[in-house]
Amino acid sequence: MGEFELIRHFFDRPELQPSRSDVLGIGDDCALLSVPQGRQLAQSLDTLVSGVHFPEQCDPFLLGYRALATNISDLAAMGAEPHSFTLGLTLPESDSDWLQAFSDGLVALAQPSGLALIGGDTTRGPLTISIQVQGLVPTGQALLRSGASAGDLVYVSGSLGDAAGALPAVLEGLYPHRCDDDSVSYLLERYYKPSPRVKLGQWLATHGATAALDISDGLLGDLGHILKASGVGAELNLEQLPLSPQLLSVAGLSKAQGYALGGGDDYELCFTWPAEKTLALPEEIRAECSVTCIGRIMDTAGIYDASTGLPLSAAAYRHF
Amino acid sequence: MGEFELIRHFFDRPELQPSRSDVLGIGDDCALLSVPQGRQLAQSLDTLVSGVHFPEQCDPFLLGYRALATNISDLAAMGAEPHSFTLGLTLPESDSDWLQAFSDGLVALAQPSGLALIGGDTTRGPLTISIQVQGLVPTGQALLRSGASAGDLVYVSGSLGDAAGALPAVLEGLYPHRCDDDSVSYLLERYYKPSPRVKLGQWLATHGATAALDISDGLLGDLGHILKASGVGAELNLEQLPLSPQLLSVAGLSKAQGYALGGGDDYELCFTWPAEKTLALPEEIRAECSVTCIGRIMDTAGIYDASTGLPLSAAAYRHF
Repeated sequence: MGEFELIRHFFDRPELQPSRSDVLGIGDDCALLSVPQGRQLAQSLDTLVSGVHFPEQCDPFLLGYRALATNISDLAAMGAEPHSFTLGLTLPESDSDWLQAFSDGLVALAQPSGLALIGGDTTRGPLTISIQVQGLVPTGQALLRSGASAGDLVYVSGSLGDAAGALPAVLEGLYPHRCDDDSVSYLLERYYKPSPRVKLGQWLATHGATAALDISDGLLGDLGHILKASGVGAELNLEQLPLSPQLLSVAGLSKAQGYALGGGDDYELCFTWPAEKTLALPEEIRAECSVTCIGRIMDTAGIYDASTGLPLSAAAYRHF
Repeated sequence: MGEFELIRHFFDRPELQPSRSDVLGIGDDCALLSVPQGRQLAQSLDTLVSGVHFPEQCDPFLLGYRALATNISDLAAMGAEPHSFTLGLTLPESDSDWLQAFSDGLVALAQPSGLALIGGDTTRGPLTISIQVQGLVPTGQALLRSGASAGDLVYVSGSLGDAAGALPAVLEGLYPHRCDDDSVSYLLERYYKPSPRVKLGQWLATHGATAALDISDGLLGDLGHILKASGVGAELNLEQLPLSPQLLSVAGLSKAQGYALGGGDDYELCFTWPAEKTLALPEEIRAECSVTCIGRIMDTAGIYDASTGLPLSAAAYRHF
């Protein structure tokens, strides 16, 4: 199958095509899109390399799903509404079964997210996936990393550490639908099908959160980006870290806390919120994910354990 | 050098940073940009793989330059004004000399083009470069492939076949600045530093060209895309093909014509223009590149030699 036929068959699918009349998708030298007045376009590009970011024999459906999910999570972290994406796909060979499953994985998340595939490039070479997602955000209201100030509360969405807890099973080649242990299966689901917190991010952007990002490299490292960009520090209440019963059952409390602090791939949001303001999330968002206050922003640089006053270091939690 | 330091040092350079106040560049979860009223955003993503699209030991300055040039050419083909780009760079190792030269190659073209590097991703793995460029075009005026109609004249910019003529020297590992033969050196320059026809494209978009694209895979194949999208055919006058004296001197007439028809990598524009309208290019654009009428659009599908009436096939010219 040649490049053009491949694109037509697996990527120029109706399920991935823009229904908007103001978008020109796949098929010309460039895609064309309009950005409505009063909106900015938020863009994020991520590259996933076989053998580095995912196992070489990874299930292609889950790979497509996860590649798109991790990108959408960047839109969620800015408070942007998903709009469209482009795909740079480098493949060692044109394997129809693989491509069909990969494309189905994209569709499974792109459709409910309202994301259209508007362009890209397919090339031959070592398996590498670059996805650029883009979304719309009301001008001036995007959630930046730089807005936290002393006294703000630190929140996270969902539960932390699940994806890190899944890693041993991922490296064994297990998949959620092919795993007997319900807890491990749950953790694998969290690793392969992260849930970008799009609605939460949009709500936070328009209701007064002061800073946000998504947790891809681990809470301590990622929170560190907010602290650095905002010129502040934080103290965390470790006993408040939201841990799933499944992670606790598989890893025990101490390891689970380590995963939550130092483990990546959770794609939950970490955000700061003014202490004097009530965080009244609408029911629609609370039904999708919980949010938990885990600490407070301080003037002093660094991240500290609120109960002992000792510094918390990401490196100390990278032993797994 | 870690990922963040690498990005700061080689890519968050002032020469690559947006001077516009309406752009948020590198450093948050997403880049943010605004699109002015009355403009559309044109976007194109290309992936270059080491050993497939360029020699494994390629000079990194020329690689950076060429990677960006081939992408800007897609903006030129739509008539868009360059705005910004994102870079997905996968590297086997973090080699400072290589990164500095690659980054300098980007700067050498991005600065005069007015392109800001607003985001991206650096990862470890086999050398792969994905660049997404974006530009602004007056709403509804982008040059599409689908607007050609019978009677239109077929034009190309510059000279054709130079890059294909350079390929033997490219595969030998020669570079323009390290080549004794002036003609071969010229062809190498054309291969490594293509000149995206940005001003020509912008002028054509606003002055009545009916269709356009850039020639990346070879004239016959690429013109075929215009013909297919427009539902028409074309006849070409082979003796009108613009061939450089350097190509003629290196390859001779017959091979040079073959390179011009079937060879890729020229990144000249091919466009169609209404026969009844004078093509009066302003001096500023004529000083940058010539344009040559090489044929005419016809009702009959296919591409024909105007002097013999026989079909011209790209495959027949892929023997080099």
